[in-house]
Amino acid sequence: MKTYLDCIPCFMTQALRAGRTAGLEDKQIKTLLDEVGAMIRDLPMGNTPPETGAVIYQKIREITGIDDPFLSIKQKNTREALDMYPELRQLVRRSDDPLLMAIRLAIAGNVIDFGVNRTFDLKKDIKQILKQDFAIFDYAAFRNQLETAKNIYYLGDNAGESVFDRILIEEIKKTVIFVVRGIPLINDVTYEDAIMAGLDKVAEIVSSGSTAPGNVPALCDLSFMEKLSRADMIISKGQGNYEGLSEEPLPVFFLLKVKCQVIARDLGVTENSIILKQQKNQ
Amino acid sequence: MKTYLDCIPCFMTQALRAGRTAGLEDKQIKTLLDEVGAMIRDLPMGNTPPETGAVIYQKIREITGIDDPFLSIKQKNTREALDMYPELRQLVRRSDDPLLMAIRLAIAGNVIDFGVNRTFDLKKDIKQILKQDFAIFDYAAFRNQLETAKNIYYLGDNAGESVFDRILIEEIKKTVIFVVRGIPLINDVTYEDAIMAGLDKVAEIVSSGSTAPGNVPALCDLSFMEKLSRADMIISKGQGNYEGLSEEPLPVFFLLKVKCQVIARDLGVTENSIILKQQKNQ
Repeated sequence: MKTYLDCIPCFMTQALRAGRTAGLEDKQIKTLLDEVGAMIRDLPMGNTPPETGAVIYQKIREITGIDDPFLSIKQKNTREALDMYPELRQLVRRSDDPLLMAIRLAIAGNVIDFGVNRTFDLKKDIKQILKQDFAIFDYAAFRNQLETAKNIYYLGDNAGESVFDRILIEEIKKTVIFVVRGIPLINDVTYEDAIMAGLDKVAEIVSSGSTAPGNVPALCDLSFMEKLSRADMIISKGQGNYEGLSEEPLPVFFLLKVKCQVIARDLGVTENSIILKQQKNQ
Repeated sequence: MKTYLDCIPCFMTQALRAGRTAGLEDKQIKTLLDEVGAMIRDLPMGNTPPETGAVIYQKIREITGIDDPFLSIKQKNTREALDMYPELRQLVRRSDDPLLMAIRLAIAGNVIDFGVNRTFDLKKDIKQILKQDFAIFDYAAFRNQLETAKNIYYLGDNAGESVFDRILIEEIKKTVIFVVRGIPLINDVTYEDAIMAGLDKVAEIVSSGSTAPGNVPALCDLSFMEKLSRADMIISKGQGNYEGLSEEPLPVFFLLKVKCQVIARDLGVTENSIILKQQKNQ
C-alpha cells in the first residue's frame, strides 16, 4: 500500500506517541518531531507507510541510545496473554468450528498495538471480536489452501498478540514457519518475544530481517524474500504487514483488525472491521 | 497558552484538512505539508498555537492564490444559523434565566468550527449543550461584572457561530463592540461575515487586525490592543481566543466548548466540556 496524504500527520502522531512510550524527555521528543517533520519533503509517496516508520524508529533509537525501548511493555503484554492462554485454548476446543474460532482469536490479539492505537482493553475487545461479523471473509479459500499447503509462513505482528497466533498455529496442525522482525520496532514481535510466547513449541521461528514495522519486501533480507516467494501459503497478521505486502503477487491471507481510516478506505471497509482477505494477484 | 508537543501533529492534521476544504489538489496539499513539516524545527514552543496557525493559513493563501477559500462554507453556515435565529430567540425569551440560556446557545454555536473538528451536527449539538453541566461556571462573576461594565468587547470566533453571539449580545442589553479577525482564516468571522449575521444591528463591529486564527496580542493591531486593555469586560469565544489570551492580564470571560485534549488539560477539565471561565490574573 502506498503512503496516503492522511498518513503524514499520523507519522507525527506515531513519533510523538512512540517517543513518550520510549521514555524520551520533552526536549528529545521535540527533536524527534523536528526530524520527522523535516523528512516529509523527501518522503516518496510511492513507498509503503512502514518504510517511513522504519526511519522514525531508527531516529528514536539514535536519540534514546536504547535498542528496544518497548521491551518491558512487550513482556507485560506477553505475560498477560499467556495468563489467558488456557482459557482461550478451551474456547477453541469447545467451538463448533475450532479453526474459525482460532482465526477470530488471532485477530482479537491484533488489538495489542502501540503503533496505531495505544489504548485497548484486551478482554473487552476479545469479547467484541468474537461476535463481530467479518467485513471480508475469504474463509473457504483459506480452508482450501490450508488443506494442500506444505510450506506455510505465518507473519507475526505484535508481541503479546503472538500468544494468540500460537493458538491459531496449533489449530492449523501443520509445520509452520513463524516470522519475526529483524530488529525491535515499537512493540512488534522479535525472536526473543516469540520464544517468551512459546512459539518455539509449535513452529520454527525465523527473522525476516525487516527493519520496518511491517514486512516490506525492500527492507527484508533477500534470502528471506526468496524463501517467502516459494511459500504456498502465507498468513499475514496486522496492518503493518498488510501495508508492506498488499500489492505483492504472493499467496497471502491477511488477518487484521482495521484500525485507521486510510486502511479502511484501501480495503473498502469501515474502521474497526475484522478482515480475512485472500490476496487477489497471487 | 503555549504550544504543547501534542499541538505539532495537530498542526499537520489541520493543514491537511484546511488544504482539502480549500479545494487544493493532492500535490498542492503535499507541498503544504512539506512546508509545515519543515517549519516545526524553528517553531518557538513558547508561542501560542494560533501563531503557528497564522503561518499555516498564510501558506494556504500563497498556494491557492485565494484570500478566503472558506467563503462559501462560511456563508452556508451563517445562512443555516440565521434560519434557526427566530427559534433560538424564542428559546431565550421563554427561559427562566434568559442570560444563561443565551450563554449556553453562544457556546453551542461554537461547534461550527472547521479548524479543530470538521464534522458537527448543529441541531443535535445544541440540544446536547442545552442540558450539559458546565465544567467551569463563573456565572455569578459574569453577571456581576456585566452589571457595572460600560466598555464591553466581545471577541467573535467562527462565522455562523456569530448568529449565536448576536443572541447573547441582544440579551446583554448594553453597548457592545464585536471583534472580528483582520483577515480571513479558516472559517473565522470577518467583517463581512459579521454583517451577514446581522451583528451590525446589535453591536459596533471592529477588526482586531489579527492575522492568526485567534486574537493573539502580538498579531493584533497595536491600536486595537490599546483599546482592549481599557475594556472593563471582555467576552472571548472559542479555543483560538483562549489560546491567544489565556495568560493576558485582562478582564476576560472565556466561553467555549473544549474540542481537544491539550486545551482540556490546560483547563483541567475533560474534552467536550463547556466552559464559562473568568480570567484569574486580571
